[in-house]
Amino acid sequence: MADVISPIPQRIVEAAVLAALEEDGAFDDVTTRALVPADQWGRGTFIAKELGMIAGLQVAAAAMSTLDSQISFDALVEDGTRVEAGTEIAEVEGPLGSILSAERVALNFLQRLSGIATLTDEFVHAVSGTGARILDTRKTTPGLRHLERYAVRAGGGQNHRFGLGSGLLIKDNHIRAARDRGAPDLETIIARARDASAHTMRVEIEVTNLEEVKEALAGRADVILLDNMPIDEMRRAVELIAGRALVEASGGVTLDSVRDIAETGVDYISVGRLTHSAPALDISLEVATV
Amino acid sequence: MADVISPIPQRIVEAAVLAALEEDGAFDDVTTRALVPADQWGRGTFIAKELGMIAGLQVAAAAMSTLDSQISFDALVEDGTRVEAGTEIAEVEGPLGSILSAERVALNFLQRLSGIATLTDEFVHAVSGTGARILDTRKTTPGLRHLERYAVRAGGGQNHRFGLGSGLLIKDNHIRAARDRGAPDLETIIARARDASAHTMRVEIEVTNLEEVKEALAGRADVILLDNMPIDEMRRAVELIAGRALVEASGGVTLDSVRDIAETGVDYISVGRLTHSAPALDISLEVATV
Amino acid sequence: MADVISPIPQRIVEAAVLAALEEDGAFDDVTTRALVPADQWGRGTFIAKELGMIAGLQVAAAAMSTLDSQISFDALVEDGTRVEAGTEIAEVEGPLGSILSAERVALNFLQRLSGIATLTDEFVHAVSGTGARILDTRKTTPGLRHLERYAVRAGGGQNHRFGLGSGLLIKDNHIRAARDRGAPDLETIIARARDASAHTMRVEIEVTNLEEVKEALAGRADVILLDNMPIDEMRRAVELIAGRALVEASGGVTLDSVRDIAETGVDYISVGRLTHSAPALDISLEVATV
Amino acid sequence: MADVISPIPQRIVEAAVLAALEEDGAFDDVTTRALVPADQWGRGTFIAKELGMIAGLQVAAAAMSTLDSQISFDALVEDGTRVEAGTEIAEVEGPLGSILSAERVALNFLQRLSGIATLTDEFVHAVSGTGARILDTRKTTPGLRHLERYAVRAGGGQNHRFGLGSGLLIKDNHIRAARDRGAPDLETIIARARDASAHTMRVEIEVTNLEEVKEALAGRADVILLDNMPIDEMRRAVELIAGRALVEASGGVTLDSVRDIAETGVDYISVGRLTHSAPALDISLEVATV
Amino acid sequence: MADVISPIPQRIVEAAVLAALEEDGAFDDVTTRALVPADQWGRGTFIAKELGMIAGLQVAAAAMSTLDSQISFDALVEDGTRVEAGTEIAEVEGPLGSILSAERVALNFLQRLSGIATLTDEFVHAVSGTGARILDTRKTTPGLRHLERYAVRAGGGQNHRFGLGSGLLIKDNHIRAARDRGAPDLETIIARARDASAHTMRVEIEVTNLEEVKEALAGRADVILLDNMPIDEMRRAVELIAGRALVEASGGVTLDSVRDIAETGVDYISVGRLTHSAPALDISLEVATV
Amino acid sequence: MADVISPIPQRIVEAAVLAALEEDGAFDDVTTRALVPADQWGRGTFIAKELGMIAGLQVAAAAMSTLDSQISFDALVEDGTRVEAGTEIAEVEGPLGSILSAERVALNFLQRLSGIATLTDEFVHAVSGTGARILDTRKTTPGLRHLERYAVRAGGGQNHRFGLGSGLLIKDNHIRAARDRGAPDLETIIARARDASAHTMRVEIEVTNLEEVKEALAGRADVILLDNMPIDEMRRAVELIAGRALVEASGGVTLDSVRDIAETGVDYISVGRLTHSAPALDISLEVATV
Repeated sequence: MADVISPIPQRIVEAAVLAALEEDGAFDDVTTRALVPADQWGRGTFIAKELGMIAGLQVAAAAMSTLDSQISFDALVEDGTRVEAGTEIAEVEGPLGSILSAERVALNFLQRLSGIATLTDEFVHAVSGTGARILDTRKTTPGLRHLERYAVRAGGGQNHRFGLGSGLLIKDNHIRAARDRGAPDLETIIARARDASAHTMRVEIEVTNLEEVKEALAGRADVILLDNMPIDEMRRAVELIAGRALVEASGGVTLDSVRDIAETGVDYISVGRLTHSAPALDISLEVATV
Repeated sequence: MADVISPIPQRIVEAAVLAALEEDGAFDDVTTRALVPADQWGRGTFIAKELGMIAGLQVAAAAMSTLDSQISFDALVEDGTRVEAGTEIAEVEGPLGSILSAERVALNFLQRLSGIATLTDEFVHAVSGTGARILDTRKTTPGLRHLERYAVRAGGGQNHRFGLGSGLLIKDNHIRAARDRGAPDLETIIARARDASAHTMRVEIEVTNLEEVKEALAGRADVILLDNMPIDEMRRAVELIAGRALVEASGGVTLDSVRDIAETGVDYISVGRLTHSAPALDISLEVATV
Repeated sequence: MADVISPIPQRIVEAAVLAALEEDGAFDDVTTRALVPADQWGRGTFIAKELGMIAGLQVAAAAMSTLDSQISFDALVEDGTRVEAGTEIAEVEGPLGSILSAERVALNFLQRLSGIATLTDEFVHAVSGTGARILDTRKTTPGLRHLERYAVRAGGGQNHRFGLGSGLLIKDNHIRAARDRGAPDLETIIARARDASAHTMRVEIEVTNLEEVKEALAGRADVILLDNMPIDEMRRAVELIAGRALVEASGGVTLDSVRDIAETGVDYISVGRLTHSAPALDISLEVATV
Repeated sequence: MADVISPIPQRIVEAAVLAALEEDGAFDDVTTRALVPADQWGRGTFIAKELGMIAGLQVAAAAMSTLDSQISFDALVEDGTRVEAGTEIAEVEGPLGSILSAERVALNFLQRLSGIATLTDEFVHAVSGTGARILDTRKTTPGLRHLERYAVRAGGGQNHRFGLGSGLLIKDNHIRAARDRGAPDLETIIARARDASAHTMRVEIEVTNLEEVKEALAGRADVILLDNMPIDEMRRAVELIAGRALVEASGGVTLDSVRDIAETGVDYISVGRLTHSAPALDISLEVATV
Repeated sequence: MADVISPIPQRIVEAAVLAALEEDGAFDDVTTRALVPADQWGRGTFIAKELGMIAGLQVAAAAMSTLDSQISFDALVEDGTRVEAGTEIAEVEGPLGSILSAERVALNFLQRLSGIATLTDEFVHAVSGTGARILDTRKTTPGLRHLERYAVRAGGGQNHRFGLGSGLLIKDNHIRAARDRGAPDLETIIARARDASAHTMRVEIEVTNLEEVKEALAGRADVILLDNMPIDEMRRAVELIAGRALVEASGGVTLDSVRDIAETGVDYISVGRLTHSAPALDISLEVATV
Repeated sequence: MADVISPIPQRIVEAAVLAALEEDGAFDDVTTRALVPADQWGRGTFIAKELGMIAGLQVAAAAMSTLDSQISFDALVEDGTRVEAGTEIAEVEGPLGSILSAERVALNFLQRLSGIATLTDEFVHAVSGTGARILDTRKTTPGLRHLERYAVRAGGGQNHRFGLGSGLLIKDNHIRAARDRGAPDLETIIARARDASAHTMRVEIEVTNLEEVKEALAGRADVILLDNMPIDEMRRAVELIAGRALVEASGGVTLDSVRDIAETGVDYISVGRLTHSAPALDISLEVATV
């Protein structure tokens, strides 16, 4: 699977890595400057310390090479690979001081992205065989959306719209606002939204009960988002929609609840915690002089 | 306690918030533009959905006002306050469309920072009465170090050095590098580091056994970092040091292990998971038209 | 109509205006500095010198206020208004030297955007009554896409996708590439594209003959783009599609040809020259001391 | 002629191209990502679709290589070459997906700059043999001044001052302001301007009648700008000046009127429409897989 | 005199000040944060500690207000004023911690710019009555050209061209290069330069002996720069030129030598040391709590 | 000595150099463009025109290569080398026009940094044999702190804290503020500061008399700064401190006074004039065509 993960544009990786190195003072590492001479060479191995899925090797590599272009980086596994504790996942070699100065930033990215991939992978496995796809949300870490969406892809998930400008999603508050301005039903609201937006976008609308599902179908919504609906009602909604629109479910989805949701027949399940609450995967860099 | 949290410089908050709004397409929210007219006014309430500690109200406020300076923001609690599920924590009022466009970014920051404050608060309570202080690490989210360090302060923790340029911390790899270049012991290494760095910095050195503690004391290290040491050995190290240096403990510290560590008498315990693995605190924004 | 034009986010306007003022050396106007003292006040009137439609008053205002916040700007008409030669469209008042230093940048934007609105308005009128809508394309001036899309809206046109990231449009070269990699027909290609992209995006595909129209319908394309098709074939394509997909026409569309195209029944006509070849509208600023 | 066109600094080209690629979403091309695998190679040919003069090959090349450094670009003609419809002007080869993602930006620049070069070339030919030189103005597209001035040079024109900081040009409004502050005549105004500005700058002044020409001569203006003057009066002004100052003509100059103006004996004719109203030259990119 | 100094554009001041505050860590002042609570108010007085001329009050004010908009700044003298040791030159009032955090940056600018103004003033006085004007050069501190040129103006000097793009100055190396490519004399070189550059620029040329002066006159140079010429030869050059060109002298000019140079009758004397070697003027900020 | 100077991170050098080249208009050098064809090659030698110490060759090299990567740069001496008038210090070779366009920026940096190194070297020699080390201060040129600190190191000096965020230094104004808020003595103030700041920082405190020295010792200050103290009192302070804290002296230190200060036994002497008043070292670039 790893071979089909669409990569992060290298420019975005480099910008993120450079900002992080500067934030960390990596170009002004007083300890390393005091103790590691420029001509001392070293080698390091990134090792997974627990079971999980790897994502972000491209970013770790960029952290090293941006700090010092003399550092070489060799990935020993591919992103999207499930590894056990103790697996060696990449090797670096170059000026030892530079490796030490870049280490923390490389690990900060690699651990976070691998944490997201690992959690996504768990959700994807939890729904396997159901036809439901796991989606991320806009609940990403500010500044890291491109990277975290990549980690979700690495974990086998699929990306929702990038942001507010790249997809039309009518949520409860939009509906409330429109009703307040005289829109009698979702059909009217969908028509209004469609009329005001690019013809290349689908219209997705959030509903909370079966009555709204009917209105959304009347408005020929392209995607219907069932938000925080009980499992039974969700199942009836799927039956009611009957393929006339794509169906997405959302709302506090956990590893405990995701399988039940998937079995209602929804097409997509969006999971905020993939990005807002994934714990980092424990990875370390073991360094030796050469 | 909340009244003594040193705030984040407003310029840093504004830069972070602006970048996040742009990343999210908040200035180009196609759905809101289609459905919410510019003259429709609204009001929203941020509500905690679970027990926790709040941090980041300044950031949430900036997200709103950066998107639209017509939005007013009133905090109902202060950062560093422990709240129960259902507590109203802040109110916004202004153009409804603007509130909706900024909502996700405001929440993404507020939930993440409150999550960190909540976890920090739990660690701080776990060691209460011992004299040990809880420290953060450099394992922060790339790009958010200033903000996450603030959340740690809000939670009652204390900050470690900001980055590689603002503190001298001789870690195992530096020691290995220096030994490789002929340094016979930690005393020599400390002297070398002290000689090469600013006289305003303390020297902290990482040790892994009692022999190294003795060498560090011989070198008159200002701070000795006991890394991944068994509790018993840690206790003997503290006795051996006997106030001649500050003592910090680190290494996979959890809520289960932190109290035992604190009771060894160490001065500081640094905890990576405060920032790399804190789950977001669940907070929502309830919106109404006015 | 002017009252419904969705505006350009002010931040984008300000960034564009600031860059233009710096490019023009407006903060270092040697002539004005030599001849106009800081306490000399002036007033100016923007006057249309030929028949056309106005767009960009917000940008002209920002050019003035960014150069000097003491300049006031009063629009006398709204964007999207058709004016005759001699119409006064806006007034400025403030430090005379500042008005002179900002004049060229204000006019450069206002003339260009009004030129685009004027041309768009002509196309919109040429198809009036047919149901076809006039779309812009990605053939905008590099750096000015947000502004030029606004001018198209001011002129009564509608915007196509913003860029390559915000809409799925399978063009002839994509089709060629996919066929080369074993895709037998458009149906397969559409399925492949749909599978790999966000579920919030419609799939639009470019076709050049009726056979391809059929394949696109088989693939349930959301939008079918008839590129450079003869009028008769276009009409047959519309009949064949019969409402099962939206239909867009494109390819060297001129004021001479656009009505015939519209009368084939297509839903959209995209016109590159709206932005790549619209001549500037002649507007001048008449200044007096006060 | 092409061999003497002073080029655009590469850094300016790269910055313009990068901003345009980002604006266009070229690093996030969802369609190409869905349909063109990274290992599919392609070749493309830029072909002029109508008669004109080429300018901007350096920019088109940079658009390609900035998107993907694996793309090679070979120009088949030089900038400043007049081509017929059907002429192949450049070839690219590299990853097909990258070529497609960069195509629009490359063409947007190339078509615009070639359009300006083509129009400039027409003006230059219209005055051939007269000794008058065709100048551009500050009526350029905001953000593209460096590039558009280059296109004017490519078309055989000459550049006026870059901006307000790099030349002293006393226009009617400056004169009005100075008179209002007690300057009795142009001689006084010229003296005042000369006194307040760098000794490396010439003084150019705008006049509208013969009386003002005399005052400008009395003030020993270096350049006299005849603005919107009737042809007869222009001729008398040139005779009156008699080589004591350079003479520039301006004001709504068209291809119809430019020859008559040139024959009055003026040294320079500045033409706003070179940059504010030149239609794009039609150029396409024909792509094939390899 | 102070009332006629053309100011630095506020935007340039703000950018310089912000960068300096960030460089100095002024938004992260650990000492002040530890010891000065946010509600402690203070007042400070800028006092000259030695005789000199003040320049840069606008910059010092911006340093304070950029750090904290609550700080008020009142200038007690104007830029360009000669002050004695002990003179109070400005007062600030606001949050004490903010005043302390911004103090160093405010003083760094104020002392440097006042140092330049002081030295310029000395040169200007040294030539008083001769008609010669004192010019700066491009030997400014990288990044501070706008500010240092202002300080020269404040000191009564005049600015030379801003940079390589805003004036034509043919120096010895250009002459050598042109001769190497077949230019027989300065007349030819001047003609070549004039032909290739904007008609709004004067041509200045550097000469080192009387023979070259003649060639420069033959070429009708607008300005002739006598570089490192002995006083006698300089006098003969001025006689030879006899008003047919402006005359500038340069080359290691000191306070000892400048009067003799001025008395040769040259129009301008450019002095590198105004900006590359002016010692800072000693100024302090005396702070009190309120 | 030159071999141990810790270098400036290349990224910082490149950013400084690029900004300076743009400020100087080096990418738009109208004279060079007019007179030096692109294919004319040249060679240049940097020559010291007076006795001094060289610093900044890395920066001069970057100025050349950033302007044109075809220019090669060979240093003939190392930074930190004392040279006599006439010493050749570096050679460049490449396109002549590019060398001329970058010359001024290369020299502006090289002369300034060498001026600082030269002055530092003089101070270091003045205290040789005493054990005192010469420190810089935060009185650097805004924007050039990294570079100027390097020049101090090249001259044999040592760097103080980088900025307000990287060291705790309690100055008179902080003391005054704290006393005003009820702190009875320096011991209390030191404790308060220590409590509120990172445990990796030493506490330095400024004192002005022996009484304060005692309080500082009672508070166990790590470093005591004797500010503007008479020599005799300084000697008594050193005796009183007796190795219990590091001792730094500051306050208007000159080459005349520095030896006496050093002989009191202080560990460090900080000298503002190293950076705020060092005259540039006279260096020229002699160019020849090849």
